[in-house]
Amino acid sequence: MKLRGTMKINSKGHLEIGGCDSVWLAEKFGTPLYVLDEEYFRSQCRAYRQELAGLYPDSTVIYASKALMTSAVCNIIHQEGLGLDVVSGGELYTAFQAGFPPAKIFFHGNNKSLEELHMALEYGVGYVVVDNRYELENLNRLALKRGTKAKILFRITPGIEAHTHSYTQTGQQDSKFGLGILDGVAEEVISQALSLPGVEVVGLHCHIGSQIFGIEPYGMAVKVMFDFLEKMRVKTGFVASMLDMGGGLGVVYHEGDEPATVKECVALIAETVRQEAGARDYPLPHLVLEPGRSLVAEAGTTLYTIGSIKEIPNIRWYVAVDGGMADNPRVALYQAEYEGLLANKAKQQPDKLVTVTGKCCESGDMLIWDIQLADPKPGDIFAVFTTGAYNYSMASNYNRLPRPAMVLVNQGEADLIVTRETYKDLIALDRIPDRLRNSSVLV
Amino acid sequence: MKLRGTMKINSKGHLEIGGCDSVWLAEKFGTPLYVLDEEYFRSQCRAYRQELAGLYPDSTVIYASKALMTSAVCNIIHQEGLGLDVVSGGELYTAFQAGFPPAKIFFHGNNKSLEELHMALEYGVGYVVVDNRYELENLNRLALKRGTKAKILFRITPGIEAHTHSYTQTGQQDSKFGLGILDGVAEEVISQALSLPGVEVVGLHCHIGSQIFGIEPYGMAVKVMFDFLEKMRVKTGFVASMLDMGGGLGVVYHEGDEPATVKECVALIAETVRQEAGARDYPLPHLVLEPGRSLVAEAGTTLYTIGSIKEIPNIRWYVAVDGGMADNPRVALYQAEYEGLLANKAKQQPDKLVTVTGKCCESGDMLIWDIQLADPKPGDIFAVFTTGAYNYSMASNYNRLPRPAMVLVNQGEADLIVTRETYKDLIALDRIPDRLRNSSVLV
Repeated sequence: MKLRGTMKINSKGHLEIGGCDSVWLAEKFGTPLYVLDEEYFRSQCRAYRQELAGLYPDSTVIYASKALMTSAVCNIIHQEGLGLDVVSGGELYTAFQAGFPPAKIFFHGNNKSLEELHMALEYGVGYVVVDNRYELENLNRLALKRGTKAKILFRITPGIEAHTHSYTQTGQQDSKFGLGILDGVAEEVISQALSLPGVEVVGLHCHIGSQIFGIEPYGMAVKVMFDFLEKMRVKTGFVASMLDMGGGLGVVYHEGDEPATVKECVALIAETVRQEAGARDYPLPHLVLEPGRSLVAEAGTTLYTIGSIKEIPNIRWYVAVDGGMADNPRVALYQAEYEGLLANKAKQQPDKLVTVTGKCCESGDMLIWDIQLADPKPGDIFAVFTTGAYNYSMASNYNRLPRPAMVLVNQGEADLIVTRETYKDLIALDRIPDRLRNSSVLV
Repeated sequence: MKLRGTMKINSKGHLEIGGCDSVWLAEKFGTPLYVLDEEYFRSQCRAYRQELAGLYPDSTVIYASKALMTSAVCNIIHQEGLGLDVVSGGELYTAFQAGFPPAKIFFHGNNKSLEELHMALEYGVGYVVVDNRYELENLNRLALKRGTKAKILFRITPGIEAHTHSYTQTGQQDSKFGLGILDGVAEEVISQALSLPGVEVVGLHCHIGSQIFGIEPYGMAVKVMFDFLEKMRVKTGFVASMLDMGGGLGVVYHEGDEPATVKECVALIAETVRQEAGARDYPLPHLVLEPGRSLVAEAGTTLYTIGSIKEIPNIRWYVAVDGGMADNPRVALYQAEYEGLLANKAKQQPDKLVTVTGKCCESGDMLIWDIQLADPKPGDIFAVFTTGAYNYSMASNYNRLPRPAMVLVNQGEADLIVTRETYKDLIALDRIPDRLRNSSVLV
């Protein structure tokens, strides 16, 4: 199994991440614990930024924060010179409170509320990525009321399906996102926008899916976008100064996952944009890429403590950890396959086939159906790899499990960036109406 | 479509729940909003309790709180004379803080931590439902250390599969839960327990699944449990004074769902217990049932506000609401089918076929694929039925959406029982380490 990022096996035979012994991390911060490998996360940010800037200088990489959003993550993203993609008022608020420069924020979403559009204008976000006509009209009205002009991109449905889980396919024509090219809706709405005084149409955006391994669809999407841009130029005179090709590059969850590299993906997109623009004599637009998962997923590891272990004779061994679908719902949601190891026995040969399950009262609460572990015992620390994206961000309090803490590790330093939820937090929003307090008890 | 509980269409043509106009509720408390119909919830509690007490007086109904747990819900359950099934320290803490009598609490779970077992003893919960040998040994040790004796039941895997979603089947032999009868593990562990000084084995528990429509498997499970009880009596002299047959009765999510009634389910179990005990001359045990979903699911309704509406010509209409998979992950998790109506147009004929989608940036964020609505427009209030169970309890902050408020309605009164999360709440646990604050920004 390939170790991720700065992972090493130290002299004690323990898994080390960011120079920190993960067994020590589990002891110090408790489990379950999300561990974020700062150096690896930053190196992925730099890889995207440098690869893209090298091939296509007039460009920006923005981080799709829905993958993992905390105040500290916003700081890191800002320090790495990336912009930010937010999809809700909550993400926007988090970024703003963390001091992220609003001008570098792109606001996405298929159903932004009036309050969210208002927030976007109030905070001065750089670009609103408009999904539909209703949003366009709302934004135009709100901007006019404020005497401002909102810079917008339009989300376009290119009609391209990437081969990925159906929940994470987004580019096909029958999508809740964006404006269709094939059905003429995109042309209609953009034409309308060009005459609205409250918005400035800057460019187009598309997103073809998530956890994509084969990058050919990106090239196809670029072609489709330029066909459409050219058509719009001919019909309306509109020339896009920005093209946002979205994100979606896959990561390694499990042995056998072989996504294209950042370099390959960025190169394909940048080169295809140059070619397609050149072929049409179209001015090169500012190119935006929006990776999320591929920046942060592999930089994240979850540490669990093993509790009960049971044998169903002749069937399987169940090894239960102190977390599960509440902190990582991806297994139940997408049948995601993870891998990992016993952090305190990282040098030992994994030779026992087991099923790792969570502690939720639900049969679907499985972490890994089949994995070889090194003689698992209660108290062992089980590390699950590639949990940086869509774990904390999708975590729930199912079964009233407090959400785990998150610790940022780097060169032997470990700092909490999200503190562990407490039982008290779980009831902080609960209220008991007086009429219930005064009711009598049936016997 | 069948209205649930106290629902009515009022003179304004609005959906009314618990005597409250749901359009007014949406205005007053905002959306998304969970609405809990107190009278219906209480009537379900009473139905279970009265049906069971009528047929089998030596009995207890306990509420499986993982379905929906808040402080106010604990109060209602207590007032209705039910006991409580908790599955974690968080649920136990919530119950305790709400003043729920610990002696009426059953503590379940396949992987209770030492801290949780300690809490159970500290709080004095009535019964610990022991899942496995590791837990048994831990509990015995902790109880001895405190000089006490913990009353326990054992969770048994009866080897029965109910026809339901594979995630919610729990009685089959290959399960993360409980001790198998067929493989001899149950016999072995219970025999061990009978000689441990820190525990008193009171009885057995099984649970065959969730959202069960046909109740025959309950009868089969009772038979299997008595076969096993009799075997244990012969081998060890152990006589169970308590039998907990679990929960799992289904509810109506969608037209065509036809679960057995509470009366039918309770009658079948009670009668089969009498028969099977009688046939073996086994003393009638105290009978425990553990409904969760069937008490609370249909009493819950979620109100959303409609935002963007878009037509994919010749394909479908997408109608987006201001919530989705973050407040109701059951559609993405279990392909659950819901139904609902426009609360402000409840008298109008629903005649437009649409797809209702959420606002999360994810294609899987769908609420209802095909539903007829009455001329949906932005600003309309969409009510989704049967969201009382496994919605709030499984809700996340995905996309940093704050979790909705919950309001308890009854005879025209509406009281908040969970306040709406704020943006501020979302960053309450975030921390920014000093070394990040002091880092410079790449340009």
